[in-house]
Amino acid sequence: MTLGPREARHLHVLRLRVGDVLRVFDGQGAEAGAEIMELEAGHAVLILGAAVSGAAETPFPLTLAVALLKGDKLSDVVRAATELGVARVQLLVTARADAREIGAQKLMRLQRVAEEASKQSRRAVVPEVLTPIALADFCWDGQLFVAQPGSAGRIMNLLDWSAPVNVLTGPEGGLTDAEVAGLIERGAYEVTLGPRILRAETAPVALLGAIAAAGE
Amino acid sequence: MTLGPREARHLHVLRLRVGDVLRVFDGQGAEAGAEIMELEAGHAVLILGAAVSGAAETPFPLTLAVALLKGDKLSDVVRAATELGVARVQLLVTARADAREIGAQKLMRLQRVAEEASKQSRRAVVPEVLTPIALADFCWDGQLFVAQPGSAGRIMNLLDWSAPVNVLTGPEGGLTDAEVAGLIERGAYEVTLGPRILRAETAPVALLGAIAAAGE
Repeated sequence: MTLGPREARHLHVLRLRVGDVLRVFDGQGAEAGAEIMELEAGHAVLILGAAVSGAAETPFPLTLAVALLKGDKLSDVVRAATELGVARVQLLVTARADAREIGAQKLMRLQRVAEEASKQSRRAVVPEVLTPIALADFCWDGQLFVAQPGSAGRIMNLLDWSAPVNVLTGPEGGLTDAEVAGLIERGAYEVTLGPRILRAETAPVALLGAIAAAGE
Repeated sequence: MTLGPREARHLHVLRLRVGDVLRVFDGQGAEAGAEIMELEAGHAVLILGAAVSGAAETPFPLTLAVALLKGDKLSDVVRAATELGVARVQLLVTARADAREIGAQKLMRLQRVAEEASKQSRRAVVPEVLTPIALADFCWDGQLFVAQPGSAGRIMNLLDWSAPVNVLTGPEGGLTDAEVAGLIERGAYEVTLGPRILRAETAPVALLGAIAAAGE
């Protein structure tokens, strides 16, 4: 297997040398042991061992559906969500989320953030960051959990890993009551993150943390 | 009650006017309704209603003990931890945490972050950010939970709000095995945040999120 300049640079950063062994992954759940045969500034050649299916993955895909946030906050959310095991990040346009907050370039940057975070947290899967859609068009398989301050629902009592798991968090200012009601009507569960008001960029990390802590 | 320039500015930012009502708190758990009687650039005068004890607080104090982190990462941790209900942040010097990462000025800035975050999340208590101490000198009442990748402990099974709750997370590179062993010997519980490697600044938010989601 031959690696290009960006990946070769990553090997240099890790201070690896010819003869060192490492694990490589294909971004789709498979990983393998590998030995470095050549390592130059612009490329590297590896010999791969047998592919094994990736560790550190949830039994079914975990999706974070998150409203568009202002500035660079989504980068932090995507980074933490990747560490916490999500397989996909679906960006959402909601009543209080400004669709102008995203463009092709920002989307590409978010995908790059997911890639880097996958490496750092040694995941075999790179989460896909999906082009924003309207909240009404968001469909899900399995369970959907919506973070709502003061709700009585507890994620650890409801979580069921026999199917895909989805979590949804709102923009600055939150989802509207009508948006929450619409999701509940479609089968979503409201869950609490305690009685305090969380920022839009804290809620997804806290909720994914609770899922990670609950385990499978 | 007369407010100084910084607080008056906060009222302006919130676009409040004379005659508007709001809630004020004393940073120690008490809060009260208030009406704005005067509002100038440099000061404001409020009339207070009866004090009530603060909502949004855990039954016993929640302490985050966190190793010193590089750069400005502790600001993000203190901000999110405040939203998630901590009453105190104890900074720690550990084997892999550089004590040079903090000074009096940075400590003051962290305390300011806690103040601002308390306001934003409408808490009646401002968490105290405590001067760093060595890990070996950190003592706790009640329970201490230490985030350890791959541990079998589950916070939601162990959490007991009949006493104070403490959580501890390490620096970049983690706690050493000897440090973890020392804490376990002193009665701490190891708990998991899943099989993936979290950054030092993600772990406390994820663990506090799990506690907030578990409720009381």
